[in-house]
Amino acid sequence: MGANMARHLQDCGYRVTAVFDARAEVAQEIAREIGAHACDTLAAVTAASDVVFTVVTDDQAMEGIFARRGDSLLAGARGRIFINCATLSPAVHVELAKRANKAGAATLEACMASSITQARAGTLYLMIGGDDNVYQKVKPLLCHLSDGGKLMRYVGTAGRAAQLKALVNMVMNINTAGLAEGLALAEALQLDLSTVREVFSQTGAASRVLATDGEDMQNRDHSCFFSAAHAAKDSGIALALARKARINTPLAAAAFDQFTRLVKAGFGDLDKSAVAELTFRGRGRRKPTKPTKPTKPAKSATPKKKK
Amino acid sequence: MGANMARHLQDCGYRVTAVFDARAEVAQEIAREIGAHACDTLAAVTAASDVVFTVVTDDQAMEGIFARRGDSLLAGARGRIFINCATLSPAVHVELAKRANKAGAATLEACMASSITQARAGTLYLMIGGDDNVYQKVKPLLCHLSDGGKLMRYVGTAGRAAQLKALVNMVMNINTAGLAEGLALAEALQLDLSTVREVFSQTGAASRVLATDGEDMQNRDHSCFFSAAHAAKDSGIALALARKARINTPLAAAAFDQFTRLVKAGFGDLDKSAVAELTFRGRGRRKPTKPTKPTKPAKSATPKKKK
Repeated sequence: MGANMARHLQDCGYRVTAVFDARAEVAQEIAREIGAHACDTLAAVTAASDVVFTVVTDDQAMEGIFARRGDSLLAGARGRIFINCATLSPAVHVELAKRANKAGAATLEACMASSITQARAGTLYLMIGGDDNVYQKVKPLLCHLSDGGKLMRYVGTAGRAAQLKALVNMVMNINTAGLAEGLALAEALQLDLSTVREVFSQTGAASRVLATDGEDMQNRDHSCFFSAAHAAKDSGIALALARKARINTPLAAAAFDQFTRLVKAGFGDLDKSAVAELTFRGRGRRKPTKPTKPTKPAKSATPKKKK
Repeated sequence: MGANMARHLQDCGYRVTAVFDARAEVAQEIAREIGAHACDTLAAVTAASDVVFTVVTDDQAMEGIFARRGDSLLAGARGRIFINCATLSPAVHVELAKRANKAGAATLEACMASSITQARAGTLYLMIGGDDNVYQKVKPLLCHLSDGGKLMRYVGTAGRAAQLKALVNMVMNINTAGLAEGLALAEALQLDLSTVREVFSQTGAASRVLATDGEDMQNRDHSCFFSAAHAAKDSGIALALARKARINTPLAAAAFDQFTRLVKAGFGDLDKSAVAELTFRGRGRRKPTKPTKPTKPAKSATPKKKK
């Protein structure tokens, strides 16, 4: 994800000075390709950059790279802007904004609801949270990533974009788990699944996940665009928000349970479409083989690499 | 629903000879309008027609109009074709096909995944189940109802269309109940709901029900296009199929529970979008007032009148 964003920004004429990845060889590879420096430390990234994009796996990883002590992006961060793209708990964004401000830096959320292909093409759907002043400073840069800004929405202050992203993924996960039940039952009834998907697409059962995951559920093609583990994590974030707000969310809870079950079964690294492994008859005992798949239509996804 | 189908078929040059409704005045009104005869008995409808469309509320009503004894559409039914449009338990279609065959008549399922507006315009989405021979006989007639047949799919033998329709509505109800949770949580978090819906529509949270029900959930506009009671009924049919097929459907079960709760709260006659009354903070204690709404975009719906 990060690599593709870097490639695209370079295409647009930006100088990508530094890259970092927890796996050094990943950073070195993209560094060689685009002529950037693969940094050994987080502090070196900050030293070499005006604006730093971060794309990590979860809250814990995020706390790690913005640590108060030791190697951290916050070391020598005065004047820097950090644009954070991972799907995190909203409170983490609020906390990081405070830490960054103390260090004389600023943060912005740019939650992404798109995947690798869109990162490369500069057509990411971005939900922006943070100070409007900071947003205005980096808006031209963000426009390059989101089809000239057409796919970008300013949502509110720090944490707001993360809230909305959690809601997007909560609803997406419900629709995905529900679709897996519908298709599994259709198969058990010996209905033709391709006809069923076509009928779904023309009726009240239609959804984005039907278009992105329906055929994959049918074919057991769970090459990962948005992992079951991320689905479980994001539904978990949303459920925590719901609990705190005292909103009754039985469907979200059921979807969370399904993706959690999937992770526990050892299928966490498969695409979220693998939730069908829990519902289709005779599936789920063994991990399905992973077919190679060069391209695929857009999926809402959480990026998993950092740059 | 039935009245609009009758109007459209008359527009297409068919002679609509007879109409029937359990509420006599409803039948008389449409009869006057299109110059048909409002029958006092079901047997009279059969006597006056080559092809009879039925659109009833549920399994019980369907068993009633095809009763083995007393006034029944099956009285003197030799050579007639019954096209049954209601969403019923698949087994009912199988049973009625047998009864009709004994009476020298034939049946066909034409499950509809559209609403009143589409019935009037002849653009109903139809799922056809039954003998292919019977289907071929009435295909030209059905084409007139489904945009020249573009919106019609032959699914299989008797009961197959009902199975597929139950699946469509099961998935639709899951997506609807899930959306109600997402929007309710968004409101509790004080996010702007119009922005949230716009973001949902551009991401993995997008669905047909977002387009048809999202704004109504926000505005508490639950004018009925597809009732909560029907949603509960159809999810119940799907759950019974799932139980029999031993398919695990926790999301469908959660959606069924929500719509059942809604019916028990006395909201069964509101649109399925009223499931938001169970999730939005401060709602659900009193029935929201019903705004008058002349037109509205398409919704997947179960018709509730018979003709």
